[in-house]
Amino acid sequence: MLHDAGSWHFEFNELVAAIREKLLALAGVSRAAGFEAIPMQGTGTFGVEAVLATVIPPNGKLLVLSNGAYGERMLQMAACLKITTLPLRSPEDQTPNLEEVRQTLANDSSITHVAVVHCETTTGILNPITLIGEIVRNAKRVYIVDAMSSFGAIPIDFKAGNIDFLISSANKCIEGVPGFSFVIGRRDLLLASEGFARCLSLDLLAQLKAFEKNGQFRYTPPTHSILAFDQALHELELEGGVTARGARYAANHRVLLEGMKRLGFRVYLDPQVQSYIITSFHFPKDSAFSFDAFYRKLSDKGFIIYPGKISQADTFRIASIGRIFESDIRSLLAAISETISELGFRIS
Amino acid sequence: MLHDAGSWHFEFNELVAAIREKLLALAGVSRAAGFEAIPMQGTGTFGVEAVLATVIPPNGKLLVLSNGAYGERMLQMAACLKITTLPLRSPEDQTPNLEEVRQTLANDSSITHVAVVHCETTTGILNPITLIGEIVRNAKRVYIVDAMSSFGAIPIDFKAGNIDFLISSANKCIEGVPGFSFVIGRRDLLLASEGFARCLSLDLLAQLKAFEKNGQFRYTPPTHSILAFDQALHELELEGGVTARGARYAANHRVLLEGMKRLGFRVYLDPQVQSYIITSFHFPKDSAFSFDAFYRKLSDKGFIIYPGKISQADTFRIASIGRIFESDIRSLLAAISETISELGFRIS
Repeated sequence: MLHDAGSWHFEFNELVAAIREKLLALAGVSRAAGFEAIPMQGTGTFGVEAVLATVIPPNGKLLVLSNGAYGERMLQMAACLKITTLPLRSPEDQTPNLEEVRQTLANDSSITHVAVVHCETTTGILNPITLIGEIVRNAKRVYIVDAMSSFGAIPIDFKAGNIDFLISSANKCIEGVPGFSFVIGRRDLLLASEGFARCLSLDLLAQLKAFEKNGQFRYTPPTHSILAFDQALHELELEGGVTARGARYAANHRVLLEGMKRLGFRVYLDPQVQSYIITSFHFPKDSAFSFDAFYRKLSDKGFIIYPGKISQADTFRIASIGRIFESDIRSLLAAISETISELGFRIS
Repeated sequence: MLHDAGSWHFEFNELVAAIREKLLALAGVSRAAGFEAIPMQGTGTFGVEAVLATVIPPNGKLLVLSNGAYGERMLQMAACLKITTLPLRSPEDQTPNLEEVRQTLANDSSITHVAVVHCETTTGILNPITLIGEIVRNAKRVYIVDAMSSFGAIPIDFKAGNIDFLISSANKCIEGVPGFSFVIGRRDLLLASEGFARCLSLDLLAQLKAFEKNGQFRYTPPTHSILAFDQALHELELEGGVTARGARYAANHRVLLEGMKRLGFRVYLDPQVQSYIITSFHFPKDSAFSFDAFYRKLSDKGFIIYPGKISQADTFRIASIGRIFESDIRSLLAAISETISELGFRIS
């Protein structure tokens, strides 16, 4: 990241081309199979909105399966973009009802696209994207998966899951730094989207065309984040790819869960829907517990946790991803234990 | 940039708040005078589109004064966003005709907003934003200035120029790294824009509200770019602010012009409209000249120049901005001279 790459320089363009190839390989798809990897400046949200703003036709209708803040965010995007939507909500601790998805698609032929979040970091729930994808395929609709916090650490089968567009971010499981997101999606569907774009900056087709024309980003790329991403992809490969990384995160998660339970904390989700990406814990019932004080004390000890994002329950969240190992989780658990003593609250 | 800041951590939020304050001070405006500085993830283009997508009402009409690619880009954005526009074009080597601007605003009362690019890097031309702003003020319209490549190095008087919204980028004259842009604009006009946003990611009012609610970016900030920007602002202050930085760039430009003329190159623009930011030079007439070969040779010597962006003439461009000094320009001139000999073309 300490190198100043020329935004339009051939050396940088070659790096971007190589990164796009590596992303396709990581996804287990190929250009021959009709897929393209397209980086998009901005955050993960920008990438998701780029897909919605570009590929849904003016008379299209988007079914959003929502069980958390990121499903709701897609609905907010669609509202801003004036895309007709149908929300199909399930409670934040439950995955979508598959029979309901099937019925909804059967009953409403005006639905053209279906979108779902893979790992809803609102809670940490893992949605069954392959089972949903089979239903979407049978109903012949376009399938969009927000895999922001799962891609790179949870195996995803594009073919079995019928995934047409997947969005993820530089700074989650690939362990790059923030600055851009990327879309892995079908070229034919993008080319068929000419004229749909509702926003110039987020026009994914125009972005693809720019790469194909001269290898360049349309607008200034976050060069330092791209350089860091290339290194991150290299480190992912060295670690052993998606399987090995997933195994490390799963081990982090296991150690976290055991330790937190030992301390008396209760996990919000049922184990069968809980991902190894991020975990929500109920607040202790003791009125002496203050999340702010807990957060500050842990931060002083070098650990940053996440506040809750759930509407129905008071929780906080702890992630198992990033350049962290079981030993880091054990240090965190020791810091939590120490903090409990310092703040003097009871957990259950 | 080698520190991993927590995106929502209080320490990082405090840094963002300090940066927003410094940007207001740099612009010579204040919160008391009704202004806010709002960073926006993505490139400079994202920042410009955020302003257009957020502040223009559904029945608004945008007059775009265009004499280059970045004026045209605003027209493209408005088309995507379905904002009614009126383009007022002048040739790429001429600034807008002020009398025509006045007349256009007098004749069309449906125009609500006027936008112009300060330094059109298509050519390097500097548009008279203060004179245009006086006309816009007298006509009581909202005034938007794209100061991407000028802010931080060319003094800009918000009050005299009646500027309501100014957009610039982290990685131009402030000498940060790419990853975000920022808007300095009027809070009252933003608050009056509720419900106008045509894109969720680029909703500038929602971005402001998030900062005001809890000091946080709405969506993941490019933390490393923000840390670099803070250092860049510090270095700008150490150098002596906008005046001193402008003087350095002007000296770079002067040395460049003298040297290039001595080598026989012809400048595209008249001196009275030429900025000291970037300069367009005509291609040599010799058919032995190949821009690609010229570019590659210079790149081998450590210098990256820019291709032309002008529709009416074959040119290339050389910038005078960034962490470069007169000595760097002299080295560039020596490299150009050497390259001319190596490639064996005549200049005039």
